[in-house]
Amino acid sequence: MIQENLAECRVGVIGLGLMGGSIALALRGKVQSISGYDIDPDVIRRALDRRSIDFSIDLADQTDRIDLLILAAPVGAILDWIPRLPKIMAGSFHLIDLGSTKSLIVEVMNQLPDRITPLGGHPMCGKEISGLAAADTNLFRERVFVLTPLERTLPATTALAHQMIAAIGAQPLTIDAERHDRFAAAISHVPYLTSIALVAAAAANEDQLIWNMAATGFRDSTRLAASDVTMMLDILLSNRSAMLKAVARVQASLQELAELIERDDRSGLRAYLDKIREQRIALNT
Amino acid sequence: MIQENLAECRVGVIGLGLMGGSIALALRGKVQSISGYDIDPDVIRRALDRRSIDFSIDLADQTDRIDLLILAAPVGAILDWIPRLPKIMAGSFHLIDLGSTKSLIVEVMNQLPDRITPLGGHPMCGKEISGLAAADTNLFRERVFVLTPLERTLPATTALAHQMIAAIGAQPLTIDAERHDRFAAAISHVPYLTSIALVAAAAANEDQLIWNMAATGFRDSTRLAASDVTMMLDILLSNRSAMLKAVARVQASLQELAELIERDDRSGLRAYLDKIREQRIALNT
Repeated sequence: MIQENLAECRVGVIGLGLMGGSIALALRGKVQSISGYDIDPDVIRRALDRRSIDFSIDLADQTDRIDLLILAAPVGAILDWIPRLPKIMAGSFHLIDLGSTKSLIVEVMNQLPDRITPLGGHPMCGKEISGLAAADTNLFRERVFVLTPLERTLPATTALAHQMIAAIGAQPLTIDAERHDRFAAAISHVPYLTSIALVAAAAANEDQLIWNMAATGFRDSTRLAASDVTMMLDILLSNRSAMLKAVARVQASLQELAELIERDDRSGLRAYLDKIREQRIALNT
Repeated sequence: MIQENLAECRVGVIGLGLMGGSIALALRGKVQSISGYDIDPDVIRRALDRRSIDFSIDLADQTDRIDLLILAAPVGAILDWIPRLPKIMAGSFHLIDLGSTKSLIVEVMNQLPDRITPLGGHPMCGKEISGLAAADTNLFRERVFVLTPLERTLPATTALAHQMIAAIGAQPLTIDAERHDRFAAAISHVPYLTSIALVAAAAANEDQLIWNMAATGFRDSTRLAASDVTMMLDILLSNRSAMLKAVARVQASLQELAELIERDDRSGLRAYLDKIREQRIALNT
């Protein structure tokens, strides 16, 4: 029987990096037990040592031990894990992932047998750091936690996900996977690319002194360029079509701005900048 | 005779916004007196009320009253003020401006009579807020203060500028105006344009829900889009050729990244991102 009460759930977390380690910490004391697995045995040991997890998941001996499985690996690893789950995990359980892109993941989730009830998830709280050492019980607090349901997602899984989101202090936002990926490209993944492009363009001056002039504006605008590359590669390449559309939009906007500057069109430039400034300021309110 | 000791200087500040108000506050007690002027009489009154300045500058009656004049207006206003100075300011004095672009300003400074000894300046501490109310005595602390000397700049003016920079807690960096403008385009003004382009691209989804997903990454990457538009217009349009080159570099980098994503070239993309990540991380050390 499928568990519907978070407090009684035996939770399993696969991937004990920043996200997995943080959700394990945030759920401690609010669930029956938390087990964990990571491809790096050292990370499992450290998670046990700091009591982020109660025990490790033995992939060779899984007989109905988990009610809620959370996949907290990078997108590529999540896509590898999902088709393996029917072989290594027994019984009925809820499955939620924390991957940064959703369309490919829910497509693969859709192939799972009925006993596994999937739901896509994405907490909007990236840091440019990664790893268990950075895990933080408050990582999700007041952040948006996106849920991307499949047609087959059971009401019980959705209800449990909402309990989990409330337990970690986040705010739920339910949208379909395609819309999530389009939004994420624009507000998360393309800003990473512009960060990269800004550093590349500054470096193209081939003059070390330029870095001495870099103030907080540049540091903030390029903070994302320090993100973990493996994680970002998975994200960029698993969301290609939305990425390319969003990059093209940024390129078109830069082109329009450059043309206004080239024509010395002060009033046209002012109208463009005023409008965008208002939209950005509205974000703070 | 030209004053060479900061403590004995009668300092005048034209423009009492964020920069002018802050430098007045930061120099208080370290100079003989601070007088101020702003095109908005209300601002002058408020600066007197909060004792940012000791008295106001009477433009109709300037008889050898200032040893160091600081132009702290937006670039366009600075360019208007400089040619007026010989008519309204008597005696010999040092002139330093705080404008965000330097080539046009030092060109205009170069036309001044010998009794006015000019030096270009640019403290690297922009905020996306402006105005006297935001003025802060610590605004310049540990920030880089760029000096762009002219050929005619006197050693005494340079020495006084270094005393002033030390007094406000900043770090001097001396480079020529052309190099400053090229650097500033890459590390300050193009990041503003990418901030604008990111907000414009997100808004192009025409879906209000996208803003709910905007996390710290997007907010940091687009913070500059809230900058004062009049100030930014002056900056962008007074540094057109460096701006257009820097924008073209960012566009070329985005194009290269988009092509790597389109070709699904994981190893090429990894090499590009790894290299830039290292450069960005080096900025923090």
